[in-house]
Amino acid sequence: MSKPGGKQRLHLSGVVPPVVTPLSADGALDIASLERLVEFELAAGVSALFVLGTGGEGPYLDLPEREEVVARVVKQAAGRAPVVVGISDIGTARALHNLHLAAAAGADGLVCTAPFYGEVSDIEVEAHFEALAGAAGGLPLYAYDIPSKVGSKLSTASVVRMARRGLIAGVKDSSGDIDGFRRLRLELGGLEGFSLLTGSDSFADMALLGLADGMIAGMANVDPAGYVRLYAAARQGRWEEARAEQDRLFLLRDIVLAGLPRVSSFSATIGSFKTALVQLGVIDSDALQPPLRRLNDAERERVREVLLAGGLSPVADGK
Amino acid sequence: MSKPGGKQRLHLSGVVPPVVTPLSADGALDIASLERLVEFELAAGVSALFVLGTGGEGPYLDLPEREEVVARVVKQAAGRAPVVVGISDIGTARALHNLHLAAAAGADGLVCTAPFYGEVSDIEVEAHFEALAGAAGGLPLYAYDIPSKVGSKLSTASVVRMARRGLIAGVKDSSGDIDGFRRLRLELGGLEGFSLLTGSDSFADMALLGLADGMIAGMANVDPAGYVRLYAAARQGRWEEARAEQDRLFLLRDIVLAGLPRVSSFSATIGSFKTALVQLGVIDSDALQPPLRRLNDAERERVREVLLAGGLSPVADGK
Amino acid sequence: MSKPGGKQRLHLSGVVPPVVTPLSADGALDIASLERLVEFELAAGVSALFVLGTGGEGPYLDLPEREEVVARVVKQAAGRAPVVVGISDIGTARALHNLHLAAAAGADGLVCTAPFYGEVSDIEVEAHFEALAGAAGGLPLYAYDIPSKVGSKLSTASVVRMARRGLIAGVKDSSGDIDGFRRLRLELGGLEGFSLLTGSDSFADMALLGLADGMIAGMANVDPAGYVRLYAAARQGRWEEARAEQDRLFLLRDIVLAGLPRVSSFSATIGSFKTALVQLGVIDSDALQPPLRRLNDAERERVREVLLAGGLSPVADGK
Amino acid sequence: MSKPGGKQRLHLSGVVPPVVTPLSADGALDIASLERLVEFELAAGVSALFVLGTGGEGPYLDLPEREEVVARVVKQAAGRAPVVVGISDIGTARALHNLHLAAAAGADGLVCTAPFYGEVSDIEVEAHFEALAGAAGGLPLYAYDIPSKVGSKLSTASVVRMARRGLIAGVKDSSGDIDGFRRLRLELGGLEGFSLLTGSDSFADMALLGLADGMIAGMANVDPAGYVRLYAAARQGRWEEARAEQDRLFLLRDIVLAGLPRVSSFSATIGSFKTALVQLGVIDSDALQPPLRRLNDAERERVREVLLAGGLSPVADGK
Repeated sequence: MSKPGGKQRLHLSGVVPPVVTPLSADGALDIASLERLVEFELAAGVSALFVLGTGGEGPYLDLPEREEVVARVVKQAAGRAPVVVGISDIGTARALHNLHLAAAAGADGLVCTAPFYGEVSDIEVEAHFEALAGAAGGLPLYAYDIPSKVGSKLSTASVVRMARRGLIAGVKDSSGDIDGFRRLRLELGGLEGFSLLTGSDSFADMALLGLADGMIAGMANVDPAGYVRLYAAARQGRWEEARAEQDRLFLLRDIVLAGLPRVSSFSATIGSFKTALVQLGVIDSDALQPPLRRLNDAERERVREVLLAGGLSPVADGK
Repeated sequence: MSKPGGKQRLHLSGVVPPVVTPLSADGALDIASLERLVEFELAAGVSALFVLGTGGEGPYLDLPEREEVVARVVKQAAGRAPVVVGISDIGTARALHNLHLAAAAGADGLVCTAPFYGEVSDIEVEAHFEALAGAAGGLPLYAYDIPSKVGSKLSTASVVRMARRGLIAGVKDSSGDIDGFRRLRLELGGLEGFSLLTGSDSFADMALLGLADGMIAGMANVDPAGYVRLYAAARQGRWEEARAEQDRLFLLRDIVLAGLPRVSSFSATIGSFKTALVQLGVIDSDALQPPLRRLNDAERERVREVLLAGGLSPVADGK
Repeated sequence: MSKPGGKQRLHLSGVVPPVVTPLSADGALDIASLERLVEFELAAGVSALFVLGTGGEGPYLDLPEREEVVARVVKQAAGRAPVVVGISDIGTARALHNLHLAAAAGADGLVCTAPFYGEVSDIEVEAHFEALAGAAGGLPLYAYDIPSKVGSKLSTASVVRMARRGLIAGVKDSSGDIDGFRRLRLELGGLEGFSLLTGSDSFADMALLGLADGMIAGMANVDPAGYVRLYAAARQGRWEEARAEQDRLFLLRDIVLAGLPRVSSFSATIGSFKTALVQLGVIDSDALQPPLRRLNDAERERVREVLLAGGLSPVADGK
Repeated sequence: MSKPGGKQRLHLSGVVPPVVTPLSADGALDIASLERLVEFELAAGVSALFVLGTGGEGPYLDLPEREEVVARVVKQAAGRAPVVVGISDIGTARALHNLHLAAAAGADGLVCTAPFYGEVSDIEVEAHFEALAGAAGGLPLYAYDIPSKVGSKLSTASVVRMARRGLIAGVKDSSGDIDGFRRLRLELGGLEGFSLLTGSDSFADMALLGLADGMIAGMANVDPAGYVRLYAAARQGRWEEARAEQDRLFLLRDIVLAGLPRVSSFSATIGSFKTALVQLGVIDSDALQPPLRRLNDAERERVREVLLAGGLSPVADGK
C-alpha cells in the first residue's frame, strides 16, 4: 500500500529517538552536529527519527529553524529511516502552520500534543486533531500524550474515538499511566496499523511486555544501541535480558538529575542529553534554546561519571 | 518623567479589562466589534486596556492578527487610556517576536507570563524576563502569574528580585494565592511605581483591602462599570459598598459555568464573556479561536438569565 | 433558647484559638501549662476555646488524654467562654466514640472534619455528619473543611445541604478557597444562627470583609490579643486598622517557617506555636506527640527573633 | 532461623490478598463469612493473608473488632499460611496500640503506612517506624506506601535507610510509581530477606518483570486463583502467559467502576470486592463500615456482568 507520493504507509515501531536539536554556542542551528547525530542514531539501528519533539526543543524553535531541521534530517536520513516531525503548538492555527511546513520539508509522519496554554477537554482535543488530520494530506498523525508539559491528559475515550475515526495512526504515551496504556491496547489492539508507543525511557521493558509497538525514548539519543538491544530482547521473548538492559539504562538516565534543582527539569533533561552527546563526540555544544539553561561544569562532570558507570565512553568535556 | 517618544511613565492601577478579541463567524478579526468594545470599556471609566492576554486569546493568535489587534486598539483608544499588550509565548525567541511587534504597533506596556510547555524554575524565568526587559526599549514590562495556564508559579523570591533589579514594573497575580500577594506587597510596597494587580474577578474587594493597585479582571469585559464602582468604593474606604458590589459581580460571573463541563474551562470562560457581550449589543459574534469551542444555544440562554439576575440588560441572542 | 443543661444556644463568632495541648518532656499531658494557656487566651478576650483540633494534636491523642483535656479546659474556663471540641477521626465509629466522650466531659459544641484515610464523596460525608448530628444530643456540630489534612474538600453543595437540614451549625474553612467561602455566605447568609468561620491566620482581615463571623486561627494561640484587635477593628468598620494588624500577624506567622524543611509542615507549625508559648512564659515545654518532631535550638532562636520583630516579648529559651 | 514461638522467619512473596472484613447487614463482624473467605483464598494457593489493610477496612475498625479479626483468621489459617496484620493509624501512639493487639492475637507480621492526617516528612516517617520496630518483638514490619490514602509518599531514600537499619522487612508499594519501585530494587536487591511487593492489581505482570517478590492485590480477594496463575507464569518465565492472565484480571477489575461516581472510590472499590464475593457465594453481605456506602442494585448487576465476562461464575445477587 502506498500513500500519494509513493512512500510506503508508515507503521511506527521499534526505537525512535526524539532527536535533540544541536545548537552552536551562539544559539544558531549546528547542522554539522545534527548530521553526525543522525548518523549516530541510524548506525545503532533505530527504526525512525522523531524531530522537533520535546527532546528536540521543537516548541521553542521558530519557523525557519523548524523548516531547516526537518529538511536537513530528511536529506541526511535519505530514506534509510522515516522521519516523523513534531508539530505541537498552543492552538490549532499555529499547529497547522507547523504541519504545512513539515509536510513541505519532507516529513513521513506528524506528531502532535493536545493544544496547550491551560487544560483542554475532549471536545477541543478532538477538534484540534480533526483539523490537523484534515490538512495532513495522507501523512500519518500521531497523538502525543504528555500532560507534564501541556497540562491535559488525553482521555482514553478520546484516543479511542480518534483512532477509530482514522484521525490518528498511533499514540506516544509519555503520561506514565501504564494502566491507561493497557486500556488503550485492549481497546485498540485489533486496529490495523495503529501504533502504541511508550514515551518512557525507564520502564520500556514493562511497556513492551504490555505490548507497546515501540518507544520514543529521550535517552535513545544518548545510547541508541542500548535501546535497540532492549527492544530486540523483548521482541524475541528474552525478557530477563530486556530487564537487565533496562536496568542499565535506568541508571544511565541518572544523567538527567545532574542539573537539579539548579535548573528546571526540562533544562536538566535536554541539557544532560546534549552534554552526554558532546562527551560521546557526537555533537559540538550543549547549548540550549532560551530560556532553557545548559549544565555547568560540575554538572557536566557528574554526567561523565554516570556515563562511565553505565558502560559508555565519554571523552570530551562537553563545554 | 517621560520615556522616549514622550509618553508618560505608566503606573497601572484601577480597572484594566483584558479585552477579548472579537472574531466574525468565519474566524477573521472583527475590527468593528473590537472598536465598539474599546468604546464600551472606556465609557465605563477603565484605567487602561490589556490586549492579547488570556482573555484576548492572545496565545492563539498569529503574528499578523496580533499586530492588527494592537494597532487598532491603540488607534481607537487614541490616548484616552494606555494600552498594554500580552507577549506571552512558549519560549524566549517567540516572546521577543511578540514584543517587537507590540512595541512597533504602539503598545504602552507589555505583559508576559513565565515561558511555558512544562514547568520552569526561577533561573529560567528570570533569564526570560531579563531578555525581554533588555529588548523592551523603556516600555514597562509586567509579570503575569497564571500557573493554571503556564504550569509554573512565579516564586515570591523571583518576583522580588526582578522588581528590585528593575526588570519588571509590576505583577498581575492570577494565581489565587492571596498570601503570596500580601507577601509581595510587604516586600515591594515601598518600591516606587511598582504595580500589584490582582487577576481575580471574584475577590477583588479583598485584594484591594490587601492593597492591590488595581485589577485585571476578565469580567470587566462584561461589566466594566461594576468593577469601576467596586474600585472607587474601595479606594474611598467604603468597604461594605465594595463588598456588596463584589457580591453582585461574583454571582454575575456564574456565566462562566454555563458551558461546563461540555467544553473546557478556557472555552467556557472566554466563550461566556463573548456571548454576554453579544447579548449586551457590544460585539457581533461569540466565535472563538480553534480549538476553543463557543457556547451552544442552551448555554447562551443560561448566560442571558445570569446577566438579567445580575442587573444587566441582555438584548441579543448571542448567536 | 436553651439546650438541656441550661446552657445558651451557641453561636460561634469572634476569635477562637485552636488551643494547643501542652505536653511535658516525657510526653504526658501538662495540665498546669494547659490551665495557664486557657487563662492566657481568656485574658486576651477570645470568644471561645477550641480543643482537640489540628492545632491541639487532637487526632494523635488517645481516648483518656482526650477526656482529660476536655474536662480540664471546661473546668478552667468555668463558663467564661464556651469550649468546643474536635472529634475528627478516620471513620464514623471512631468519631462517635470521640463525640460521646466530649459530650460527657462537658463540651459546648463539636467540630468534625470529613472522615479520612483517602478521599470521600459527598454521600459519605453527609452520612458521616448525619450519624454524628443524630448522636450529638443537641450540641451544635461544626463542619471543619481542611483538605490539606483529610484529603477531601467539603463541596459547597454538601455544606449547604447539611446546613439547611440542620445537621451542622457552622463551618470552619481551612481550605484557603475564598471564593468557596463567599459562595457559602451568599447561599447560607440568611440561615439563622449559622456560623461561618475562617481557619486562616493570614487573611482573616479579608475573610471578615467577606463576612466571616469569626476565625479559628492557630496563631491566636500565640498572639490572641492581636487577633482580638483585628476582629474588633473589622467589626467596627476600621478596615485599614484591621489590615495593618493582619500585616503584623502575617509576619509574626513566619515562626511556622523556622522548622522547614527539616520537619514536616505539621511539626513546624504546631511546634512553633508551642515554642513561642514557652518563650512567652505560658507553657513549659514544646514537646509534641509522636511522630511529630519538635524544633531544635537554631529553629527556636529563629522563632524568638520573629516574635521580637513582631512586637512580642519572648523571655524563655523554649527548651 | 526462628523467631520466639518457633515460627520461621517470614519472607513475604507470591500472592497475598488484603482480606476484606465481612460484616453482617447490621454492621457486626460476620465471622462465618470471614472463615469461608480464608478457606477460599487458601484453596487458591495464596502465600499469606493480609488482614486489616485498606481492603480490610482496617483503619475504620475499633480495637475489639481488630482483635477478633486477627484471632479468627490466625485460627482459621492454622499455620497453612502466615497472617500479616495492618496496624496503620494516625499517629505513633495509636499504631502502637494496634501493634500490641496484633502481636497478642498471633500475627506473623505487621504492615504499616506512614502516619496520616496531613503530609509527613522523612524524619517523622522514620521516627514512626523506629518506634514500631522497637515494639515489634521480632515480628517483621512492612512499610506500606499508599499516598492516595495517607497523603505522603515514602521517599526512596527513607525506605532504603529503614531497610538497611533493619527497621523494615519489606515494602508494599501501592503508589503506582514504577520507576520508584525499580529504584528500590536496584538499591535493595541484595538485601537478604527484604520483600518488594507491589500493591497493584492491574500491572502485577510488569511489576514481576521488574522483580517484585509478590503482590498484595485487592482483586486477589475476588479471583485469587487468577493471581496465583499470573504469579506462577511470571516466576517460570512464561511472560506472555502472565500478560494474558493480567489482561483478563485487568478487565475483571472494572467491577471497581460500578459504583462511581455515586460513591467514593474507596466505597466503590471495597464495595465491589464484597459484592463480587457475595455473588461468588463466599460471603453473605456486602455491607461496609460507615461512612463507606455499599453498592446499589444496578451497580451489583454491573458487577455481575463484569464477573461473567471475566470468566467467573457469579450466582448470588449480592444483596
